[in-house]
Amino acid sequence: MCGIVGAVAERNIANILLEGLKRLEYRGYDSAGLTVIRNNELHRERQVGKVQELVNAVAVNPQFFDGHIGIAHTRWATHGEPAQRNAHPHISGKIAVVHNGIVENYSELKEELIAKGYEFTSQTDTEVVSHLINDLYSQNNDLLAAVRAVIPKLHGAFALGIVHVDCPDELIAVRLGSPLVIGVGIGENFIASDQLALLPVTNRFMYLEEGDIAKITRDKVSVYADGVEVSRKINEIDAQQHNADKGEFKHYMLKEIYEQPDAVSRTLEMALESTVSNEQIDDDAKNSYQLKADFLQRHESKLAGIRHIQVIACGTSYHAGMVAKYWFENLTRLPCSVEVASEFRYRNPVVIDNSLVICISQSGETADTLSALRDTQKQAPTGLVSLALCNVPTSSLVRETDIYLPTHAGPEIGVASTKAFTTQLVALMLLVLKIGVTQSRLDDERLTTLLAGLHKLPSQLYASLHLDGDIQAMSEKFENKKSCLFLGRGLQFPIALEGALKLKEISYIHAEGYAAGELKHGPLALVDKDMPIVVLAPKDSMFDKLKANMQEVHARHGELFVFAGESSKMVAEDRLHVVYIPDVCEDLAPIVYSVPVQLLSYHVAVMRGTDVDQPRNLAKSVTVE
Amino acid sequence: MCGIVGAVAERNIANILLEGLKRLEYRGYDSAGLTVIRNNELHRERQVGKVQELVNAVAVNPQFFDGHIGIAHTRWATHGEPAQRNAHPHISGKIAVVHNGIVENYSELKEELIAKGYEFTSQTDTEVVSHLINDLYSQNNDLLAAVRAVIPKLHGAFALGIVHVDCPDELIAVRLGSPLVIGVGIGENFIASDQLALLPVTNRFMYLEEGDIAKITRDKVSVYADGVEVSRKINEIDAQQHNADKGEFKHYMLKEIYEQPDAVSRTLEMALESTVSNEQIDDDAKNSYQLKADFLQRHESKLAGIRHIQVIACGTSYHAGMVAKYWFENLTRLPCSVEVASEFRYRNPVVIDNSLVICISQSGETADTLSALRDTQKQAPTGLVSLALCNVPTSSLVRETDIYLPTHAGPEIGVASTKAFTTQLVALMLLVLKIGVTQSRLDDERLTTLLAGLHKLPSQLYASLHLDGDIQAMSEKFENKKSCLFLGRGLQFPIALEGALKLKEISYIHAEGYAAGELKHGPLALVDKDMPIVVLAPKDSMFDKLKANMQEVHARHGELFVFAGESSKMVAEDRLHVVYIPDVCEDLAPIVYSVPVQLLSYHVAVMRGTDVDQPRNLAKSVTVE
Repeated sequence: MCGIVGAVAERNIANILLEGLKRLEYRGYDSAGLTVIRNNELHRERQVGKVQELVNAVAVNPQFFDGHIGIAHTRWATHGEPAQRNAHPHISGKIAVVHNGIVENYSELKEELIAKGYEFTSQTDTEVVSHLINDLYSQNNDLLAAVRAVIPKLHGAFALGIVHVDCPDELIAVRLGSPLVIGVGIGENFIASDQLALLPVTNRFMYLEEGDIAKITRDKVSVYADGVEVSRKINEIDAQQHNADKGEFKHYMLKEIYEQPDAVSRTLEMALESTVSNEQIDDDAKNSYQLKADFLQRHESKLAGIRHIQVIACGTSYHAGMVAKYWFENLTRLPCSVEVASEFRYRNPVVIDNSLVICISQSGETADTLSALRDTQKQAPTGLVSLALCNVPTSSLVRETDIYLPTHAGPEIGVASTKAFTTQLVALMLLVLKIGVTQSRLDDERLTTLLAGLHKLPSQLYASLHLDGDIQAMSEKFENKKSCLFLGRGLQFPIALEGALKLKEISYIHAEGYAAGELKHGPLALVDKDMPIVVLAPKDSMFDKLKANMQEVHARHGELFVFAGESSKMVAEDRLHVVYIPDVCEDLAPIVYSVPVQLLSYHVAVMRGTDVDQPRNLAKSVTVE
Repeated sequence: MCGIVGAVAERNIANILLEGLKRLEYRGYDSAGLTVIRNNELHRERQVGKVQELVNAVAVNPQFFDGHIGIAHTRWATHGEPAQRNAHPHISGKIAVVHNGIVENYSELKEELIAKGYEFTSQTDTEVVSHLINDLYSQNNDLLAAVRAVIPKLHGAFALGIVHVDCPDELIAVRLGSPLVIGVGIGENFIASDQLALLPVTNRFMYLEEGDIAKITRDKVSVYADGVEVSRKINEIDAQQHNADKGEFKHYMLKEIYEQPDAVSRTLEMALESTVSNEQIDDDAKNSYQLKADFLQRHESKLAGIRHIQVIACGTSYHAGMVAKYWFENLTRLPCSVEVASEFRYRNPVVIDNSLVICISQSGETADTLSALRDTQKQAPTGLVSLALCNVPTSSLVRETDIYLPTHAGPEIGVASTKAFTTQLVALMLLVLKIGVTQSRLDDERLTTLLAGLHKLPSQLYASLHLDGDIQAMSEKFENKKSCLFLGRGLQFPIALEGALKLKEISYIHAEGYAAGELKHGPLALVDKDMPIVVLAPKDSMFDKLKANMQEVHARHGELFVFAGESSKMVAEDRLHVVYIPDVCEDLAPIVYSVPVQLLSYHVAVMRGTDVDQPRNLAKSVTVE
């Protein structure tokens, strides 16, 4: 989750590196550093804290960093605390290295290198890489050959950027388990962990495959796989879609919460169309909707054979998968399992024959999800079909799966996911409907109702955004709390988990989500007057059961904050606060109820003065295990 | 989770009721009350707090409670806070009612009764029952007929005990969704929520079925189902197995933690035998073990046809089910799903054909688990086989399933489950092995290793109990903490959840369990110097990954408390505390690692001065939804 940027050009590249780092800051922001080769020397600056600290430090003597080749790094600490000595680049002799990922066997390698006389100045796993390359470079003065010889010695998953004073035109890049792209310019070339970093300098990208080693000069990119030169396609991207500016909003997260009606509309557009002509649409009663003929059409034969669904995801995406489980089983009667990727991949799981494996990840680069997919593909159960549900069409997950189901959320910059989550839910419902129709598992009436419900979603999301003021007022009660519970039942259980995760991530309040029926099996012991309980309570088939759970809490002096369906007629009373959410079709309620929990978390965090868009310790894409 | 006791006898019954309540206190202890008919009047006493408060109040004028018929109740609040006016029995005119469970439609019924002129003195759902019976009794002065007429009006799940001043020889009992047994004495009869309450007065019990209404006099028990008199068998039980005395231990929980080696031995005895004669057993190398020929033998044909496992459970039992999932899939390649009962039953889940549905519940009376079983049986998928994993052989779950897999834990009195959990794990492993052997899905070498491992388990549990002093010392660091995380990977992930649940239940610290790989997806934001992190770290195949997760925490100033395998060679350092757990076969490690997390929770709770055996807000068996 560290971020790498590198450049080789005719012009000075220091500002390109710094701008790139700022754009990668979502990946980690414990410390940052850069190295530029100038006058046959490595000039390095490293600072603890955000990239701005590094920018300030470089600005003291900018001329020291005038150079045509360099590498830079923003760090998310794995080995060793955030400290200047642990920040990248790491230097050994004339070699500098930036590294994203983990070298698992670094302690053995470190012992060997110490025995050879190398001195270590950091606690990182990265420093062994720089010393190892240095050690092997001396054998034949070929940087590419040295890197190639070092890679097999390293266990783990990582990406590297490497420069050497004696090869001032040559940038070496390695991708082995962590993302790395090459930005192809005109007479200049770049590397970065995410193309987002390089958009100000190019819109053409080459995506490395796992195991690729590249030698990059100003005019040429040579890529090697297993020692043989290979060609990798150059993709030109539409930079417009990457408009990542927070505009008049105070934070990216708030902007992204408010973008949800539009983001959901865009995601719906790929699959939903009206069955009536434009002249008729004024008459809402006549209006109805259908799945577009081309929606996943070319994958229909694959979808027809599916008998089981396996969802693999992490964090927020895992919560989207949980909602999908409820939908798949209830609406299509196809059994569905959902599991956290870091558990799934290591426990030797059974993947049933004719499974659709759905990998959900905003970035499409989540390391555990990607590895779980690959392990499943290796296991190769009969009839396996893989699908990537991602927000980034050029991501590794998309490239390595049979089917790509996009979310059209647009770039999400806030570390706490919001619009990526709701668009994932929408795309999953579209998939449920598509499979239900393809396999004749869904009756027409239900399909019609759900399609009409989906069409109304954007306006219902707008309506729930109108509650912002009420929710902000409610959030004041949370400012000084240490702990909090979120409760839901059925389709709202995953939203309770997601609400708790949001509050945890950005306000640092210890929030935990629970299926309301589990309350009596332990967590009720935590309930007293200091413990706020957030309840997701649409007026659905579970509402009466949920009301009984609320009474159990209220009887024990717990303070309840209820997001209740308008028609529930819940009445506020002492220690029972209610915000009414517009009534919505039961199956789609989890999408609408996501908004108030996001807003609640946001306002609590702002009130507590935390860094909403870049909460401590976290990073946007988890590209290490 | 309330407890009911009732008696009709020639002798005075007040002390029998009070003794019964004390024995039911594990079911709830917000308030308690009793009513005795004496000189054509209802004499009632009710007190907030534990049963001892009621005993003290009765002792002021014991002669008021001399009577031959009465009912009593210990309450776990669902509707209305713990208060004298909400305590049972509830009286309407000459009728008194005790009630366990929930009447869901009480508010409509209440409105009707108020319209008729009835006055309500409590906030409970129970009071509508007493008024309704009173209302209908006036029609033909037949108590049984009045009760029969009232029951169809009540929605929910419940058990009732009812007396009327004008019928001083007649105790009416109803079971509809909550447990109730009839104790059959000599010239006297009793009712109770659990036979445990009546062991001092009888060892013969009649188990009511759902919907049964009974009229109980001194000499006769008449049971009616759908208006027709039916006969229900009388079971005589071996009272010896119910030795529930905390002996020299300060708390039941501590006693039960220390009983685990014996409890596990007893559970193993049903299935495990040595293959060598007694003369040889001195030579350990020659010794080996096999599954007993009669272990689940009569169910072998059912077990042979199973193609999928579905576990349904709540709370701690759910955690046992999660471990079983890992075992089933890894060891037998049979796919296994696990779900919380309160979610499973309401979401219209798919139960795959040829599934073994395993219901886990210490008491065998957990309302949601029982209902989920019944719903599944109604769905009747092809080849369904149901199994109850319970500690109480006479429980509803056992009576309603095809196969009974017992845990021989002995009575568990502490509300926080300990020996029930570890014996559940042992029984589940025995089941995995039995199914693996029956279906030829387990190779001999692995079977031999696991059987040998199981044989060693009791001594390994003893060894982990020897760490009590070290763990007590460690627990001092938790005394003033508000929050805590428990981390594990693979088979230790469910133990992390269980450890967090234990700490939550009895110390009221907000502890949460996480799969260590999920840390980066949100909870890491909570980590700072005030957040202790407990890690379960046996030296297994996941250890290196887990170490990387620990480093991520340590780099962010988190304080780590690690239960590490002896051979892990983890070294304590600043903010990293280690207790070494004896090395144990990887598959059985979750059983052994349960002990240190139980001890840690226990000592933290004692230090914080909470009521360890009866933590606030909780009850032992959750017999309401």
